Amino acid sequence: MGRLVMKFGGTSVANIERIKNVALHVKREVDAGHDVAVVVSAMSGKTNELVAWATETSPLHDAREYDAIVASGEQVTSGLLAIALQTLGIQARSWQGWQIPIHTSEAHASARITGVDGEEIIKRFKERKEVAVIAGFQGIHKTTGRITTLGRGGSDTSAVAIAAAIHADRCDIYTDVDGVYTTDPRVVPKAKRLAKVAFEEMLEMASLGAKVLQVRSVELGMVHNVPVFVRSSFDKPEDIDPRGTPPGTLICSEEEIMESQVVTGIAFSKDEAQISIRNIQDKPGVAAAIFGPLADASINVDMIVQNVSEDGTTDLTFTVPASEFPRARETIVKAQSKIGYAKLDTATDVAKVSVIGIGMRSHAGVAAQAFAALAERNINIRAITTSEIKFSLLIDAAYTELAVRTLHTLYGLDQA
Amino acid sequence: MGRLVMKFGGTSVANIERIKNVALHVKREVDAGHDVAVVVSAMSGKTNELVAWATETSPLHDAREYDAIVASGEQVTSGLLAIALQTLGIQARSWQGWQIPIHTSEAHASARITGVDGEEIIKRFKERKEVAVIAGFQGIHKTTGRITTLGRGGSDTSAVAIAAAIHADRCDIYTDVDGVYTTDPRVVPKAKRLAKVAFEEMLEMASLGAKVLQVRSVELGMVHNVPVFVRSSFDKPEDIDPRGTPPGTLICSEEEIMESQVVTGIAFSKDEAQISIRNIQDKPGVAAAIFGPLADASINVDMIVQNVSEDGTTDLTFTVPASEFPRARETIVKAQSKIGYAKLDTATDVAKVSVIGIGMRSHAGVAAQAFAALAERNINIRAITTSEIKFSLLIDAAYTELAVRTLHTLYGLDQA
Repeated sequence: MGRLVMKFGGTSVANIERIKNVALHVKREVDAGHDVAVVVSAMSGKTNELVAWATETSPLHDAREYDAIVASGEQVTSGLLAIALQTLGIQARSWQGWQIPIHTSEAHASARITGVDGEEIIKRFKERKEVAVIAGFQGIHKTTGRITTLGRGGSDTSAVAIAAAIHADRCDIYTDVDGVYTTDPRVVPKAKRLAKVAFEEMLEMASLGAKVLQVRSVELGMVHNVPVFVRSSFDKPEDIDPRGTPPGTLICSEEEIMESQVVTGIAFSKDEAQISIRNIQDKPGVAAAIFGPLADASINVDMIVQNVSEDGTTDLTFTVPASEFPRARETIVKAQSKIGYAKLDTATDVAKVSVIGIGMRSHAGVAAQAFAALAERNINIRAITTSEIKFSLLIDAAYTELAVRTLHTLYGLDQA
Repeated sequence: MGRLVMKFGGTSVANIERIKNVALHVKREVDAGHDVAVVVSAMSGKTNELVAWATETSPLHDAREYDAIVASGEQVTSGLLAIALQTLGIQARSWQGWQIPIHTSEAHASARITGVDGEEIIKRFKERKEVAVIAGFQGIHKTTGRITTLGRGGSDTSAVAIAAAIHADRCDIYTDVDGVYTTDPRVVPKAKRLAKVAFEEMLEMASLGAKVLQVRSVELGMVHNVPVFVRSSFDKPEDIDPRGTPPGTLICSEEEIMESQVVTGIAFSKDEAQISIRNIQDKPGVAAAIFGPLADASINVDMIVQNVSEDGTTDLTFTVPASEFPRARETIVKAQSKIGYAKLDTATDVAKVSVIGIGMRSHAGVAAQAFAALAERNINIRAITTSEIKFSLLIDAAYTELAVRTLHTLYGLDQA
């Protein structure tokens, strides 16, 4: 007997048949004695349709109206799932963001949750075992009383925030994949599903493109210590024993991972472009002169590498998504006199490979092993950045798969 | 300079192009100096789609969830129209039923409006000339905090209720037809559009199938004395002079109709069935024994005719919609011993023709003229009922068009 949040994405509720299937998943947990809050996305395709209408009406539309429009998608699925649950004899009701309420900031279309009132939901758990079916992705701004949305993928964040508010034992995210893998199985067939991964590691993986969970939801899970379980929505409800351990990955605090591995996963991203600025003055304000204009142009800078200068001038390298490379290059060229650099070297056929693991903290020489293994394969490393639990290498894109496979084997991830 | 409510139905907001056209209609009134609240329905087809999903999930679904689902249609159009108005440089924002709030009864799927708070909308009129774009058809129940809907056609009622709450000078209903006619122009090509019609007359016409406005909205207009103007949504915004008198019908209080005609219109309904119960005891409780079981079976009884008895027994005739005839007949047959009747006569090929006019009150012999005119055409009258401003005749369905044309001419409605 525990308290559970179950989150289902757009493909899981794409039509009535699938919504009925979701209801069976929920029934399984209710029958096992759990108190359940369900968080649903809009039917897949619906949000795109609504966004297209808003854009057709005006490409530059009021974000407050955009939110009122797109939040309707989750409203529909929450009502439909409540009906499907009632049909199975389960006490259930739908909740819109403003009804709970889920308070957010006023940043329409990309609001952040500031507080969730879980009292009424808990009361109904206790009084009548009522399942709460909650429209994900949305909230309300307290002062204006207007509907807000959390941005794409926001339902994951809704789910974890609700789990925190109702003191859930676990937040189950039902998704297209059955968990988090050591790396992309399409590149490394030997990639293994991780049974557990620490919040910190997941944060590094998610932002690197693991694309399983919205980064913000992992942050929230970490702050409120809500274990988040990523599992497949394709598993048949009747095949799952709620008392057993279903396949999936538990994202939890480091302490709950008994035997933490040195390296947990290898992430990579091929759509990178590199810009190296040569011979800039190593003095205060130079970095600002470079990254200020890029920020003004809303260009996402990823890696930044600057070495200690020897002679008063230095080189600075950074990467941007390949799609933003032309604009980034233009921005830096325009700012040449202000930055005061001699030369620009750029490369677009580059990839970033990252090695992630909490165990790195206490293990010396982890990166050194990688350098040696890659050198053995004749893979040149263009740039290196490191953090406490991750290091990233910029290499020629052509070597991406080889590098990922090499590192996957090197750190013992090929074994179960 | 006045205060105006403009209501647009589903076909007027069926796609983005039409929503932009609606915005031009609104702009015209704003430019003329009016404070405007707009009430919108869902895009045509959307409500049907949502209802179908609810029904597919479960034919017997929770009306509270049904309401949460279907109310989303108006939410979308309110946001889209607000954007379209902003694009024209007009200050505008969307309002959901719960935001205003529009309080209703708890009768989900067919709730009645109990109160509308117009304060904030008026405040915004005064402070910044902001157009309120209001999702029609919906409200909120105060105690439960849940979304309610008003039933089909409910946006008309929303519009009139809001007009009353913000003390609007007029409520314009933009619809598929350009006003209320003396009768159906498809039957009588000489039918004329009425410039004005009294609330009471409109009530009699609407419930008889004129289908221009939801009955409840006319009741509300009458109670709060809100003039309701029915006009065409197909008129091009640029062709309309906001200072002129646009084509349409004003539904208003009797006092505002200077020269009221004896007869205003001829309504008719062909889908009627007649049930005559012969030789029932003329004693207390008999009518209850007949209509009680019919009410329990949710059968709508329309005309009821009972004559004064001569010998202690009498006949009673009533009509029901043709679609409900089999059930009605069965109900009465089942109750035979309780009612205690000798014989049942039924007819399904019957029609009801009604003559409506406030002037009848003060003019004697209006009905007598009709009886004579129909007799001259050899049209047999099966039953007659009368009220203060209306009388209805039950005739053989085959004569419907002939009877309507005859009466239309008789009461001088063919002339402009």
